[in-house]
Amino acid sequence: MAKATINPKLAAELAIANRILFNEGVVDGFGHVSVRDPGNPKRFLLARSMAPGLVTPKDIMLFDDRSEPVDPRGRATYLERYIHGCIYNARPDVMAVVHSHSPSIIPFGITPQRLRPVYHMSGFLGDGAPVYDIRDFAGDTNMLVTSVALGDALARALGHNVVCLMRGHGSVAVGQSLQHAVYRAVYAETNAKLQSEAMRLGAVKYLSPGEAKLARDSQDRVLGRAYELWTRSAGLKK
Amino acid sequence: MAKATINPKLAAELAIANRILFNEGVVDGFGHVSVRDPGNPKRFLLARSMAPGLVTPKDIMLFDDRSEPVDPRGRATYLERYIHGCIYNARPDVMAVVHSHSPSIIPFGITPQRLRPVYHMSGFLGDGAPVYDIRDFAGDTNMLVTSVALGDALARALGHNVVCLMRGHGSVAVGQSLQHAVYRAVYAETNAKLQSEAMRLGAVKYLSPGEAKLARDSQDRVLGRAYELWTRSAGLKK
Amino acid sequence: MAKATINPKLAAELAIANRILFNEGVVDGFGHVSVRDPGNPKRFLLARSMAPGLVTPKDIMLFDDRSEPVDPRGRATYLERYIHGCIYNARPDVMAVVHSHSPSIIPFGITPQRLRPVYHMSGFLGDGAPVYDIRDFAGDTNMLVTSVALGDALARALGHNVVCLMRGHGSVAVGQSLQHAVYRAVYAETNAKLQSEAMRLGAVKYLSPGEAKLARDSQDRVLGRAYELWTRSAGLKK
Amino acid sequence: MAKATINPKLAAELAIANRILFNEGVVDGFGHVSVRDPGNPKRFLLARSMAPGLVTPKDIMLFDDRSEPVDPRGRATYLERYIHGCIYNARPDVMAVVHSHSPSIIPFGITPQRLRPVYHMSGFLGDGAPVYDIRDFAGDTNMLVTSVALGDALARALGHNVVCLMRGHGSVAVGQSLQHAVYRAVYAETNAKLQSEAMRLGAVKYLSPGEAKLARDSQDRVLGRAYELWTRSAGLKK
Repeated sequence: MAKATINPKLAAELAIANRILFNEGVVDGFGHVSVRDPGNPKRFLLARSMAPGLVTPKDIMLFDDRSEPVDPRGRATYLERYIHGCIYNARPDVMAVVHSHSPSIIPFGITPQRLRPVYHMSGFLGDGAPVYDIRDFAGDTNMLVTSVALGDALARALGHNVVCLMRGHGSVAVGQSLQHAVYRAVYAETNAKLQSEAMRLGAVKYLSPGEAKLARDSQDRVLGRAYELWTRSAGLKK
Repeated sequence: MAKATINPKLAAELAIANRILFNEGVVDGFGHVSVRDPGNPKRFLLARSMAPGLVTPKDIMLFDDRSEPVDPRGRATYLERYIHGCIYNARPDVMAVVHSHSPSIIPFGITPQRLRPVYHMSGFLGDGAPVYDIRDFAGDTNMLVTSVALGDALARALGHNVVCLMRGHGSVAVGQSLQHAVYRAVYAETNAKLQSEAMRLGAVKYLSPGEAKLARDSQDRVLGRAYELWTRSAGLKK
Repeated sequence: MAKATINPKLAAELAIANRILFNEGVVDGFGHVSVRDPGNPKRFLLARSMAPGLVTPKDIMLFDDRSEPVDPRGRATYLERYIHGCIYNARPDVMAVVHSHSPSIIPFGITPQRLRPVYHMSGFLGDGAPVYDIRDFAGDTNMLVTSVALGDALARALGHNVVCLMRGHGSVAVGQSLQHAVYRAVYAETNAKLQSEAMRLGAVKYLSPGEAKLARDSQDRVLGRAYELWTRSAGLKK
Repeated sequence: MAKATINPKLAAELAIANRILFNEGVVDGFGHVSVRDPGNPKRFLLARSMAPGLVTPKDIMLFDDRSEPVDPRGRATYLERYIHGCIYNARPDVMAVVHSHSPSIIPFGITPQRLRPVYHMSGFLGDGAPVYDIRDFAGDTNMLVTSVALGDALARALGHNVVCLMRGHGSVAVGQSLQHAVYRAVYAETNAKLQSEAMRLGAVKYLSPGEAKLARDSQDRVLGRAYELWTRSAGLKK
């Protein structure tokens, strides 16, 4: 059957993105990253349920627009695969999604402080990242996005932003390519760390909305420079 | 004599747990982890007195329900082996115990702040970890749990929880398996770090008791994913 | 043509400085370091546009006093090469320039706190590092120093100091040699981290201006000891 | 001449101590450690002027009780060798001295907060470490202990303690053996980090003087367990 055909180049790129996210400290044993299939935009690629740092191309599976595996063959899938499918449905511009519990971001999801851009590397944070609180939609839960309904609620919270925090859980970062989503996941974490430090020193001068936009546009064009380094640092290229 | 027979598979698993705890930064030159012998629940396995990061299967010894070595053969034992025996006596559900001085937890044992779950990874902290202060039982000491009496007092402080802090010393984490105890030791440390950070930003929204319970149940079923990664990261599996 | 001749020894030293700055955590995928050509002081050496941690001698290019490449041969150049040329023009004593986004310094560029020397290693900070805010000169920008006008403004903000912070961006460190500029970039970062920590504990006793000057003079003479270590740590010498 | 004969076993042990201190993050390109010659207690061994992480047994030199090299053969010596000689003169019980700029300790030397033991690992801090301020003895200086007079002042500030902080500079840790001095340098740094964190959470319950003494006595007997690990971690033993 043709329907479960996975683009091998895209699967290889997705495996690399998994390894980079682990090597750069964005994900640990948990977290995941997906990429939309440009040849069939209603489908996306995502690893089977496993630690992202161990993912290889043969672990990549194909999912449909209800976030269900096209050809599961008995493989376990992430409970939170709905994060990905629902965002792809809501945001045609998004080609890749990272979900992580990166540590410096967690405090901004559980306190009144907003994650805002402190420097040009994270202009993509605009005037601040929104926060999704699963309790608002479903009361007491295991905190996980385990259904289309919860995934749709998260996608609505994300809105037109590229990063959305998840209260008591983690965050998502999206982009027009795998490289963009990974870059934003890395620098949202770095920004959170720097912002926490800065807030303890005194009143913080954030990027203005105009600076944030211009910085984002500028960084969007040069982030391949970091991606090349991350690929080598993860031992994925000599 | 049959009495000192050590299950070789269990000894191998315990050596791996030692190495993981060191590699993940939970223990340094000190700290220890034990596992109850399922074939003889009044006994438990624990390394001889040595740095956990260097433990191999041949360093594993067997201890009885008074926390004394069954077949010492001159090997030095941990002064605090009573931590393990006393908890196994008090908690038939516990199959493994980790004792560590992991750094981010120490501040929560010496200040009025309680360690509470900030995200789904640490739902096992429930409505907050109790603190055992050895001074309450024995006045000035070297801070170590060096007797059955002190071990029993610690087990009482632990109660039905899975993590208990020790004032001016460290903590214990327990579980229904080695993997569960190790997972909790790792994420109690991570939670402490995140909670400290969050408390400096403002009022913290912790997991509700209901969320904590549901998140714990959920994570209890998927933590093998992290354990697989930790095993490989410690160089214990190709 | 003789004009693009690059001193191979100097190019090799510059490649080493790039690798050290990455290995010591001063630069990540971004940032750059240059060295003035002593044989032609109106020119300086700088890598082509790439991650500093990957720079080798063959990636080094030559730039003129307008910060334009002498012999580009189609290679991409850093957008912010003007930082280097403008400082060399303004400061004949400067032989090397590091530009980085090292993390602990960022908070001092976006809050009212001044970066000041907390110990003898960073006496070069004198009575505090100045801050350059690009917004004062150009309103909303992408935060980057992308022209001679902006580079000249930065050089004026630097004045006679050896470190200048850049609001919402990073910093520059300069020196009478590559070793001096690298040493200052490393210890400005370390000082920032220590100063942040100290300020949370209470009133800080900084080095007096006299101590700062004497400490700087003294460290300027022994920093080769650290440079030797950094070179080996980066795997650049057996 | 017999006078410059260096005990090769002691020189080897001192080289190991240098490498451990670097590997454990106590020293960077600067800092030093010495050991008294038990065969000639008026003399001590110390490396030539170089980064401690690179020291090998052949770099070890012999110094007299005025802290001058017995047989220099043109080798450069540390400017601050007086730290060592003056402490050995004042404290017959001390057999080893570590001088470092370990990062978490610096803030306690420049603020009114005292470094005090937060847990059993650092009972050696007693009721708090004293602080030596070179400015009190010599006004504005380069902050370095570059004479017998300054070394004697430091030794007086140390008094009967085993750790003494140096304002705007670093600290010294001493012991009845190399292992004891190294252990104290490592855990004074760790204690500083934990104490800083704890002070931000609220009122800190430190070890009582009685607990500190008992904990110190207890740890003094088991620290070989950590030293074995550190030796292996530094790649100095298979």
